[in-house]
Amino acid sequence: MSLLLISTQDATAASAADLAKEVAQINGDMGMLWMLIAGILVFFMQAGFTLVESGMTRSKNAVNIAMKNILDICVGSLTYWLVGYSLMYGETSNGWFFWSGLFQGEGADLFFQTMFAATAATIVSGAIAGRTKYSTYIIFSIIMTAVIYPISGGWQWQGSGWLTKLGFIDFAGSSIVHSVGGWAALVAAFLVGPRIGKYVDGKVLPIPGHNQILATLGVFILWLGWFGFNGGSQLAWGGADAIGASNVVLITNLAAAAGGLGALITTWIWYGKPNLAQTLNGTLAGLVSITAGCGNMSAEGGVLAGLIGGILVVFSIEFIEKKLKIDDAIGAASVHGVAGAWGTLVIGLWGIDGDKAIGLFNGGGAAQLGIQGIGILAYGVWAVALSFIVLGTLKATIGLRVSKEVEIEGLDISEHGSIAYPGKRQRDLKNE
Amino acid sequence: MSLLLISTQDATAASAADLAKEVAQINGDMGMLWMLIAGILVFFMQAGFTLVESGMTRSKNAVNIAMKNILDICVGSLTYWLVGYSLMYGETSNGWFFWSGLFQGEGADLFFQTMFAATAATIVSGAIAGRTKYSTYIIFSIIMTAVIYPISGGWQWQGSGWLTKLGFIDFAGSSIVHSVGGWAALVAAFLVGPRIGKYVDGKVLPIPGHNQILATLGVFILWLGWFGFNGGSQLAWGGADAIGASNVVLITNLAAAAGGLGALITTWIWYGKPNLAQTLNGTLAGLVSITAGCGNMSAEGGVLAGLIGGILVVFSIEFIEKKLKIDDAIGAASVHGVAGAWGTLVIGLWGIDGDKAIGLFNGGGAAQLGIQGIGILAYGVWAVALSFIVLGTLKATIGLRVSKEVEIEGLDISEHGSIAYPGKRQRDLKNE
Amino acid sequence: MSLLLISTQDATAASAADLAKEVAQINGDMGMLWMLIAGILVFFMQAGFTLVESGMTRSKNAVNIAMKNILDICVGSLTYWLVGYSLMYGETSNGWFFWSGLFQGEGADLFFQTMFAATAATIVSGAIAGRTKYSTYIIFSIIMTAVIYPISGGWQWQGSGWLTKLGFIDFAGSSIVHSVGGWAALVAAFLVGPRIGKYVDGKVLPIPGHNQILATLGVFILWLGWFGFNGGSQLAWGGADAIGASNVVLITNLAAAAGGLGALITTWIWYGKPNLAQTLNGTLAGLVSITAGCGNMSAEGGVLAGLIGGILVVFSIEFIEKKLKIDDAIGAASVHGVAGAWGTLVIGLWGIDGDKAIGLFNGGGAAQLGIQGIGILAYGVWAVALSFIVLGTLKATIGLRVSKEVEIEGLDISEHGSIAYPGKRQRDLKNE
Repeated sequence: MSLLLISTQDATAASAADLAKEVAQINGDMGMLWMLIAGILVFFMQAGFTLVESGMTRSKNAVNIAMKNILDICVGSLTYWLVGYSLMYGETSNGWFFWSGLFQGEGADLFFQTMFAATAATIVSGAIAGRTKYSTYIIFSIIMTAVIYPISGGWQWQGSGWLTKLGFIDFAGSSIVHSVGGWAALVAAFLVGPRIGKYVDGKVLPIPGHNQILATLGVFILWLGWFGFNGGSQLAWGGADAIGASNVVLITNLAAAAGGLGALITTWIWYGKPNLAQTLNGTLAGLVSITAGCGNMSAEGGVLAGLIGGILVVFSIEFIEKKLKIDDAIGAASVHGVAGAWGTLVIGLWGIDGDKAIGLFNGGGAAQLGIQGIGILAYGVWAVALSFIVLGTLKATIGLRVSKEVEIEGLDISEHGSIAYPGKRQRDLKNE
Repeated sequence: MSLLLISTQDATAASAADLAKEVAQINGDMGMLWMLIAGILVFFMQAGFTLVESGMTRSKNAVNIAMKNILDICVGSLTYWLVGYSLMYGETSNGWFFWSGLFQGEGADLFFQTMFAATAATIVSGAIAGRTKYSTYIIFSIIMTAVIYPISGGWQWQGSGWLTKLGFIDFAGSSIVHSVGGWAALVAAFLVGPRIGKYVDGKVLPIPGHNQILATLGVFILWLGWFGFNGGSQLAWGGADAIGASNVVLITNLAAAAGGLGALITTWIWYGKPNLAQTLNGTLAGLVSITAGCGNMSAEGGVLAGLIGGILVVFSIEFIEKKLKIDDAIGAASVHGVAGAWGTLVIGLWGIDGDKAIGLFNGGGAAQLGIQGIGILAYGVWAVALSFIVLGTLKATIGLRVSKEVEIEGLDISEHGSIAYPGKRQRDLKNE
Repeated sequence: MSLLLISTQDATAASAADLAKEVAQINGDMGMLWMLIAGILVFFMQAGFTLVESGMTRSKNAVNIAMKNILDICVGSLTYWLVGYSLMYGETSNGWFFWSGLFQGEGADLFFQTMFAATAATIVSGAIAGRTKYSTYIIFSIIMTAVIYPISGGWQWQGSGWLTKLGFIDFAGSSIVHSVGGWAALVAAFLVGPRIGKYVDGKVLPIPGHNQILATLGVFILWLGWFGFNGGSQLAWGGADAIGASNVVLITNLAAAAGGLGALITTWIWYGKPNLAQTLNGTLAGLVSITAGCGNMSAEGGVLAGLIGGILVVFSIEFIEKKLKIDDAIGAASVHGVAGAWGTLVIGLWGIDGDKAIGLFNGGGAAQLGIQGIGILAYGVWAVALSFIVLGTLKATIGLRVSKEVEIEGLDISEHGSIAYPGKRQRDLKNE
């Protein structure tokens, strides 16, 4: 009878394998939930970019900015689904190029990765605001999300790429997303040339934006979305991954705070007053500076990375504007390119890998620093070369730039047939 | 001793039933988490509607728009909790009407469903902008969230309604929410009549909005919220539901992207320039077009549904404005009504049910198409009839429309005693 | 052989302890996910505060408002991480003061708590808009997030503080966060004095904000963030916690809706027209009024709490402005201080603790009401006293207020060297 009882119980006992299977399933489901929510947050960054870019430029080009940002997410969603995902995560590879066929990727993973491709493209749109042909921009946006970003992204994030094998670290994309976008923005701003009125008689004139409150809201939205951008790059939830992703979000916030304060204080000392536009850029630079290292840095290290990023961006913007004389309308090359390179490099300076120091200054030696340098260089060369080829070809064929008349009138009327704030027309209509 | 050991182990062994119970509990908890977060996202759509509607209309009525949208969520939250949930999900039923008593529903489920009711109401507010009495609107908003939306919603979502039994499919509410709101908007715009200055001497004059950047931000917020609207309609998370909800979010994004591009290209061909307002409407139409079928369509099918929705909305807006001569101030009837009907129909054209084709064009026969047609018709007739009765009664009694003087001055001053942008007054005060 | 079989099965059976451990781990992980997402939502409230505060004040001070709000989150993130968390949740304690050393707290918990500290600080910034020195504000923001908020927060939320032991209830911080911020705002507005042009020849003049649509968007963002603020204060997810947090979110929404309607109707009766700014304040007051009791109230009780809060705030703003003659530029003391006290008190009137009534009016006796009164008083005395000491010292040393010339010109130019809307300058540049 006791044996019978035992065997009955055995028949209904859960095996350890069953338990492990269910736990793995649940952890997978939690990870999918986190990635989906993170992807939704990253999507919202498109709204942030729209506000930052339009707020920091003139109102006569605001419709054009909105049209470029909407285009980026529309085009990026389709091209990345069509070929981008496969070029980045495809299984057939030689370490440099990847492919699995059309329409690869699905569900939360494809959704999350798509938002990164759209981000890389949209970084470019602000830099060349106010003088670029919309039709040309469309072609560049397609190539950026379909080809340029995915191919070099695969070098690291596919898992068997040449940079992964080298030991390169870029957790959420300081180089892979931001510096690729930032360097493309720099090349684009150089090739399209400065806005009329920017460089006059050897003087560098400011062209103020039209709405700093919208720009501020845009930065808050970007900061919000970045929690998904960095935190979601854990790609999982549950156990160590839950703790890991939480720490990533925490350190992301600390670096943004330090970057904002860094720029605020720098402008106070340098210009005599704490400047809003630069503080906003400092916050973004802080975020970009921790994007590579948010999973490989102590909180203190992250604060320092963000702080330096926020200081750096102020001088970088000045340098590009006044020394290089490249008219990057919103400082995209500095915020995403320079801070992206810095954020990648800093892992080699005081990064950690779990409990192990891997930085030059925390006793981890110089090996990682060298590897990080190679990665920075690789993404820089790739982005600059491809942008030059694509944009140079476009310049030589259909042209990059609108006419002088269109630029002075504003792109909104000529390119899109409407203006952002039809208040005047509205007041006239009122008496009809 | 070995027997003793076995019985000790048995005493502490987890039974398979225990394990199954715990897994079910956790899956339920994950589902609740997802529904709560999805509901929070849908809530945010109220902000999106406010921005789209105010941005696309004149500044002299912006306070009124804000007051209507705030009212909708305030009224909708209370009426749907009081009676709406019970009228929609009540257990006593004849397949057409449902009831369980006052104050039914609780927690994440009631929260999520409440946001849908508020959405249905708020769709109407934009169409009748600029000339509708606030007091009248309040009464309509109460009836919409308390009675009109819940009753017809129950036909499908209660689970034993006549449309459910027929085999009708409307996953997240292309018909149940959007077309009901859209048809009500059309009736309301017809009954209240066009704005002064819209149709003059046989000509149709444009009345441009006052802030296209706010409208763009509004569309991004709506797009964001739609991930909760459609994804949350899975009503669960874990296992197949996690994969299902993730795919719903992915396909929702693809359809929105295709809808935006569809409208962008259409306006480029039709008007000669890519138009922002219509591209924004195209994006929304893409979202509405996939709301019914997001759980019953391949990604390719969703892209096509969204693309056609985005093209359709451009012509629908023109048709209603110029042929029907109904002044729908923001195109709500086209975006939500026409695209909602299209999104419901398309399931009968190339829908799938799991692995099974159910559409006319993918070999599933014509049966589902007929059922979808019946559902479209049922929601159309219901929304038009009830709106006519309610708004017609209001028109004949307290009146729908403000006086000519109030309309010309703007509703903000007369109806609410303040203006949206008191810049002028502010400049005057500066010297006091 | 049967014995052998049994022992094999035993070897692989999951023990009940294993199962319980895995379930606990998963529940912990789900709780961490919810807290992280809730913290992200609370972060976004900073954007809401920026929009409400800038929209409800003059455009010439909008850059300054943005700079104060960005500062609060930057400073708050760093100081709360450095010392604030330890002062609030430290393990060494006498019931009044807590400490564990520098750099305590980590992950989702520290992230979530940080956002509360930043909120407490940012409440103050709106009240003193338009005339306060930026440098002075920085010092106050540091002290608020590093010392004032954390110390009194520990009295209740550390778990072994004197108010906890007394039986005080403040689930998400009506008193701990909002009234502390609100009373500090009142003291600050009193000490800094009214804006020029507010009180002239014995008359109280309105100083309208510059953008009510941005203010409306800000309120929607705050409402959104509040779901994280209150819901996340459950600090856990899974089983009873999932149901609890869901109900908290639901009741939070109902109270906000009731608060908005309460103010809308009150202004309609009182002023003759339904007023937007006050309806927005009513919504926020409804949210503040349910923040303490959202885990200790029926849905009906929450609606009543919010409704009264929304009515109360209209009269409170009038009273402070016209009777006390304190110029609180956006009504922060009423929205956060008065409604915060009311929301704390109401638990003693019709609160519940699980199934047990604890309020005076629902048969729970007067004991809880007395305890709630002690807590309200304690937080009021603390916030007023510390604010007087800190701000009084700052006033007597570096000064609180800008010069008359700076105030009339607007703080943006003098304090920050730029303006929010450089449209004029932009139009001039157009012809260069």
